[in-house]
Amino acid sequence: MGRDRAIVLASGGMDSCVSAAIAQRTHDIAMLHFSYGQRTEARELKAFHDVAGALDAASRLVIRMGHLAAIGGSSLTDTSIPVSPADLGARDIPSSYVPFRNANLLSAAVSWAEVLGANAVFFGAVEEDSSGYPDCRKSFFQAFEAAVREGTRPTTEIHIITPVIGSTKAEIVRMGMELRAPLHLTWSCYQREDRACGVCDSCALRLRGFREAGVEDPIPYVTRPVYT
Amino acid sequence: MGRDRAIVLASGGMDSCVSAAIAQRTHDIAMLHFSYGQRTEARELKAFHDVAGALDAASRLVIRMGHLAAIGGSSLTDTSIPVSPADLGARDIPSSYVPFRNANLLSAAVSWAEVLGANAVFFGAVEEDSSGYPDCRKSFFQAFEAAVREGTRPTTEIHIITPVIGSTKAEIVRMGMELRAPLHLTWSCYQREDRACGVCDSCALRLRGFREAGVEDPIPYVTRPVYT
Repeated sequence: MGRDRAIVLASGGMDSCVSAAIAQRTHDIAMLHFSYGQRTEARELKAFHDVAGALDAASRLVIRMGHLAAIGGSSLTDTSIPVSPADLGARDIPSSYVPFRNANLLSAAVSWAEVLGANAVFFGAVEEDSSGYPDCRKSFFQAFEAAVREGTRPTTEIHIITPVIGSTKAEIVRMGMELRAPLHLTWSCYQREDRACGVCDSCALRLRGFREAGVEDPIPYVTRPVYT
Repeated sequence: MGRDRAIVLASGGMDSCVSAAIAQRTHDIAMLHFSYGQRTEARELKAFHDVAGALDAASRLVIRMGHLAAIGGSSLTDTSIPVSPADLGARDIPSSYVPFRNANLLSAAVSWAEVLGANAVFFGAVEEDSSGYPDCRKSFFQAFEAAVREGTRPTTEIHIITPVIGSTKAEIVRMGMELRAPLHLTWSCYQREDRACGVCDSCALRLRGFREAGVEDPIPYVTRPVYT
């Protein structure tokens, strides 16, 4: 008997990198990446492959999900909508929210999990730091897992595991260091592909996390504002 | 104030055609079709456009969802797995089951609904006639609607409506006749594109439905066995 299998959704960013390292302690991991018209798609894909290689993933799948960009509604995929500058105190849903994106990603992950016989899907969503995306909340993942139970074969049991959902970015950095996750290979910036911009929501959250963890972020930035 | 908007998932088949006609009584309809590597993809797409034209849909979107075929596991998209001959008495899940397919389709539909401001997604799933696909059960759609509630904006309210889920194919044929739904433009066969094969699960269910409704199926068949 081999170990259990898990699918790990991996964007190429830090949260999913640490989630993959966590999954790997208990499961053979199959890593899944989505290209859906993100501005920084090519850079994220490179980060995905670099991380999958470093973690020695048993298999990799890249899914092109063009419909999320076609449907539109987000600055992440629609270049006519400006990326909001970071405002870590705001309670509004930011313009980078892709409507119901995570359900699209998880559905594909569960389809793959059922074919592979995997019993878990790891997803590195972070509730606190997700700037209010409704599909990043724990209550959403719980509801989705219930839908998976109803919508798959009776013999299939797939858990949706969000191992860092309650963590702060600083805690994720610390976990990553402890697990020797390849954080230096990850990419988080929503705007640039050569050096991280340092000013988008995603850069701001990342920089604040590293600062609070007392660790220097190993990736290159255009500018490194101090976020508090 | 215009009428409410609804997304209608439309395969090009009979159940979704009748569901669209039902939706149209109360909503402006936006029709959504998926190409995911079905054997009869081109024929289904033609049926979709024919039906959308006949029903005067306010908008149409065709989403190419290549990953369902890439993931595999179904005779519907994987030509190395044979299509099972119809066995309407069987309780097993047939080989044409695409793992968790409906969650993939519904997730995209909900994303589009949230962008358009639609308050309903109509899906012509049929529980009794669905030959045991787990993602065609009422309990799955209820669980999925709960996940939609948790995973979309607080101001978004989208209902998953399955207007024919409890109906027999014969009842669907009768409803279609009553609503003057363009059943003659629909396509159901899993195997052929010129004339329906008459022997796959989908043809068998359709032929039995028309026979029980006492109506002649207006589409051409290679053979028309009598299913009881």
